[in-house]
Amino acid sequence: MADATTRQWRLASRPTGEPTAENFDLVTVERPDPGHDEVLVRTLYLSVDPYMRGRMSAAESYADPWAVGDPMAAGVVGEVIESNHDGFEAGDVVTGNLLWAEHAVADGDELRQVDPELAPISTALGVLGMTGVTAYFGMTDVVEPVPGDTVVVSGAAGAVGSVTGQVASLAGARVVGVAGSERKCDWLTDDLGFDAAVNYREADDLGAALADACPDGVDGYFDNVGGPVTDAVFSLLNVRASVAVCGQISQYNATEQPTGPRKLGQVLQKRATVEGFLVGDYEDRWGEALTRLGAFIEAGDLSYRESVVDGFENAPEAFLGLFDGENIGKQLVAVADRE
Amino acid sequence: MADATTRQWRLASRPTGEPTAENFDLVTVERPDPGHDEVLVRTLYLSVDPYMRGRMSAAESYADPWAVGDPMAAGVVGEVIESNHDGFEAGDVVTGNLLWAEHAVADGDELRQVDPELAPISTALGVLGMTGVTAYFGMTDVVEPVPGDTVVVSGAAGAVGSVTGQVASLAGARVVGVAGSERKCDWLTDDLGFDAAVNYREADDLGAALADACPDGVDGYFDNVGGPVTDAVFSLLNVRASVAVCGQISQYNATEQPTGPRKLGQVLQKRATVEGFLVGDYEDRWGEALTRLGAFIEAGDLSYRESVVDGFENAPEAFLGLFDGENIGKQLVAVADRE
Repeated sequence: MADATTRQWRLASRPTGEPTAENFDLVTVERPDPGHDEVLVRTLYLSVDPYMRGRMSAAESYADPWAVGDPMAAGVVGEVIESNHDGFEAGDVVTGNLLWAEHAVADGDELRQVDPELAPISTALGVLGMTGVTAYFGMTDVVEPVPGDTVVVSGAAGAVGSVTGQVASLAGARVVGVAGSERKCDWLTDDLGFDAAVNYREADDLGAALADACPDGVDGYFDNVGGPVTDAVFSLLNVRASVAVCGQISQYNATEQPTGPRKLGQVLQKRATVEGFLVGDYEDRWGEALTRLGAFIEAGDLSYRESVVDGFENAPEAFLGLFDGENIGKQLVAVADRE
Repeated sequence: MADATTRQWRLASRPTGEPTAENFDLVTVERPDPGHDEVLVRTLYLSVDPYMRGRMSAAESYADPWAVGDPMAAGVVGEVIESNHDGFEAGDVVTGNLLWAEHAVADGDELRQVDPELAPISTALGVLGMTGVTAYFGMTDVVEPVPGDTVVVSGAAGAVGSVTGQVASLAGARVVGVAGSERKCDWLTDDLGFDAAVNYREADDLGAALADACPDGVDGYFDNVGGPVTDAVFSLLNVRASVAVCGQISQYNATEQPTGPRKLGQVLQKRATVEGFLVGDYEDRWGEALTRLGAFIEAGDLSYRESVVDGFENAPEAFLGLFDGENIGKQLVAVADRE
């Protein structure tokens, strides 16, 4: 296979404000050979996620910036083509943090087996992967709702938010989702069992709409978006409310420091707790979340949806769509079929 | 004593923005008689505190608004004049939440004995009272510094901040105070053992001055002031930083919703925890804090200062001075001497 090639998406330039197709470069390179303990993986599904916007910037964030000219990292579900690691053999389906590439080499210790019998393999990037685990621990460890609590989830129709709300429901909470279209809101209430949903793009008075949806105030808030939605939720916090800050997608493309109403007075008044949360801090408990999420799915208590863009060449388009709010559930790129 | 009189300060009107003397009314009323289980207390020291600004407003806050025309509540150290409660007799020195008044009646169960042999009785309103207990639990229960942490305290020369910083030092932290004058900063570093102090009024670039004072970033922040000082500290937070929001005095006189830079992105990036904190939630552990604070004072590890305005008629002036930042340490009004 020494002369075989593969394609990679590389960071062509750093975006100013909203990213565009010009920030990405599709290049054809020699397919890498796996070294000692390494595995060559052929990408089947590629995950695009809002946090990647941070890695496109040079500014310090929780993940290191990508270098301009380098291939970009992504969660991948793929098929083992060649393995020099005892844990894997050709044909295995695996998941790991690889590249925006049709093929990539990884240390076998950094990969996990995916059992195609258990669930569709794409779920290893969503409800049974990073976004599902994020939702699970953010709700159970940070928001920690008790029965009767009102929990609000922003970005509720996204990969994380849609699971978050269902985990809160399973804990006995009354769950209110905030999303950006009627189609999303209908999905939340009709299919996922959210108790109410607020379309923030259509609400004349978002604060009033949220207050209507939360007549007993807000005990827990799982924030994926930030900005005015979050301002409105903070105004409804109850005493001892818990806020998990998991994402701030409404702010990621800002070109100047965003400003907004100061909210620490409300945090004080309500003795609320606001906690930044990253799933990377839960690596040693990943299996615990997957076991619970898998059991929820098997019991029919947890629904999920995937938005799939077909074709590796369309990966940037799939990523850019995240900022238009078009996707419902987990956004994936289908790159290849299993052989 | 039926015909005796006393004086009370009453809320004459609600302030718009900064309170003024016109918001207060000095009235002479009949001195109340204690009923069953009640105690008549003659005020010796009256406490004025920033949180009272909230009670002057009609807006919802953590303490109920005072009614216009009613006497205002305050922490008092006083002398028992007449007691119908088994726990007290004439001549006892007591403390409790009484009134802006020269005399007031209270349920004996709501009063605590003050031992004049242990410490100056005025400390029952400061370092061995509400502000000291606030500082103690806010630092030990919310910020929770470990040796080597850098802890920043805003409003550091105030009644709460000055104790907070010393409690953090005793826990092994490197402590940086933010205060509004050179005199205050000198007190912090020269007398209280703060490792550094930043004068926010004189700093050309507050962020740079704080960064200089905190070369290893900020692991814990005890916030008494809010606003631009807090913005600058948030920019220096380390991963897993803890922020206790105890006061927001810079915002209390705002007439419109204050705005500022959005900070949830930093909270997320640093997985920081921001927690609103009120000492009222620690009523059942009050004794624990007093025991520890008393031991620190006895060991010479905890210094305090009081700013005392003389004369009951000057109580509003003492209160208004809190917003000019003139006081160092606990602001008190000396109303009468013990008989």
